Amino acid sequence: MCQLLGMNCNVPTDICFSFTGFQARGGATDVHADGWGIAFFEGRGYRLFLDPQPSCASPIAELVRHYPIRSKNVIAHIRKASQGVVDLENTHPFLREAWGRYWIFAHNGNLVDFSPPLDGSFLPVGNTDSERAFCWLLQSLRQRFADQLPGRDALFDAIHNLTLAISAHGEFNFLLSNGDSLFAHASTRLSYIIRRAPFTQAHLSDQDLTVDFSELTGPQDQVAVIATLPLTDNESWTTMPAGSLWCFEEGAPHQQRATRPGSPASPS
Amino acid sequence: MCQLLGMNCNVPTDICFSFTGFQARGGATDVHADGWGIAFFEGRGYRLFLDPQPSCASPIAELVRHYPIRSKNVIAHIRKASQGVVDLENTHPFLREAWGRYWIFAHNGNLVDFSPPLDGSFLPVGNTDSERAFCWLLQSLRQRFADQLPGRDALFDAIHNLTLAISAHGEFNFLLSNGDSLFAHASTRLSYIIRRAPFTQAHLSDQDLTVDFSELTGPQDQVAVIATLPLTDNESWTTMPAGSLWCFEEGAPHQQRATRPGSPASPS
Repeated sequence: MCQLLGMNCNVPTDICFSFTGFQARGGATDVHADGWGIAFFEGRGYRLFLDPQPSCASPIAELVRHYPIRSKNVIAHIRKASQGVVDLENTHPFLREAWGRYWIFAHNGNLVDFSPPLDGSFLPVGNTDSERAFCWLLQSLRQRFADQLPGRDALFDAIHNLTLAISAHGEFNFLLSNGDSLFAHASTRLSYIIRRAPFTQAHLSDQDLTVDFSELTGPQDQVAVIATLPLTDNESWTTMPAGSLWCFEEGAPHQQRATRPGSPASPS
Repeated sequence: MCQLLGMNCNVPTDICFSFTGFQARGGATDVHADGWGIAFFEGRGYRLFLDPQPSCASPIAELVRHYPIRSKNVIAHIRKASQGVVDLENTHPFLREAWGRYWIFAHNGNLVDFSPPLDGSFLPVGNTDSERAFCWLLQSLRQRFADQLPGRDALFDAIHNLTLAISAHGEFNFLLSNGDSLFAHASTRLSYIIRRAPFTQAHLSDQDLTVDFSELTGPQDQVAVIATLPLTDNESWTTMPAGSLWCFEEGAPHQQRATRPGSPASPS
């Protein structure tokens, strides 16, 4: 299995603090040592750092930890391989372009017997279930919406529908962004926290590091951090119900909807 | 305008030495200060570092310079903007996936009145002539070869044909790779050198730095380095004739063909 980290904000924000705790889980405080990656949207552009080495020992991770890249949408992933060899082409997040926008995707879970027909518009380069699911998801979106990038709500409806189909094959926690919204699916586990004024101190669970966000933020700032497991031990994280799809925008949840019968996630 | 740097080898090799000289041209010894990027293939996977800051002052460039990433195909670019604002989405190299392989592209030049019809299969995210040319090139290749990634020679023929069409719109020096071959078009200027045994010392033109390749290489190693302008001042670089398309494989030119009437590049 793997762990996911996402951030969605209303102003470009750096993720150095959260990434410091997350990075430690890649082989130091936890077992996810089969590579890691992080993608930052900056406007419509992106920066994507991938490394098949454990994040706790990666010079690239050290750079990311100390170099404040400010972004409104970030997706990171540390890998414990379930399918596919430990290799760069199997390292998340994955990137594709559709409708003249970049799309970034990372997955935690395991899909069984998931080999949907792919028409060639988006094909996996590696051999993970995760990249296959991403390609099928984009192919299906493009089949549905043809030449026109859909609006946010139509996109949410479509992603919800496709998530139901893929989830029938197993555990499918994922983060997906096109730079505007961050879609998060809690198949089994995912938590989030919203940081906004009044900002306080936060202390990492994985390292003895405290940051005082009131010294670093403006009064209007709003930041949603989403992670497989809470990254801090003195803040109140919200556990997302197993079987719920969320859309975050401008640093807050905008929609959520159940993805399994009986899930407590309420239709939006 | 911009400058290009490419490397194609028969064994995974690091580009730290060449990149050191190239990096200096991004705002220190030359004027290409509108961003830079470098892409490394590692097997079928890639690492792509992009920065809209000048390379001479970029912490990410410092990392690339000191962290030996071993690759058989590398493409780097430093930008002096001619079309498109200085922004991350306009920073080369550009990446797309086709036939389940990643394709990396960087351009030096300026295309005028180049607005070919794009069918949506590959669309630019930014607003440069360069990314538009790359998208049209991939779209045209996919139209021609449908579901089957062509072999090297058929691919060279097709790229030659498309290069003729795009070159009618202006200066179109480019580097393109899918991780197997490195295609290089000298529209106006591009040079290369092949390093093989017996290896000797090389001294950078842009910095007082010498490396003794005989200490770093094996007897079978073969490395082609391609650059807008020679990077060393004590080696004999080959100027590629203006109007010639080249295919490099395993560290040596495999094919070349003229792309303008009367060009001295001989048909292969």
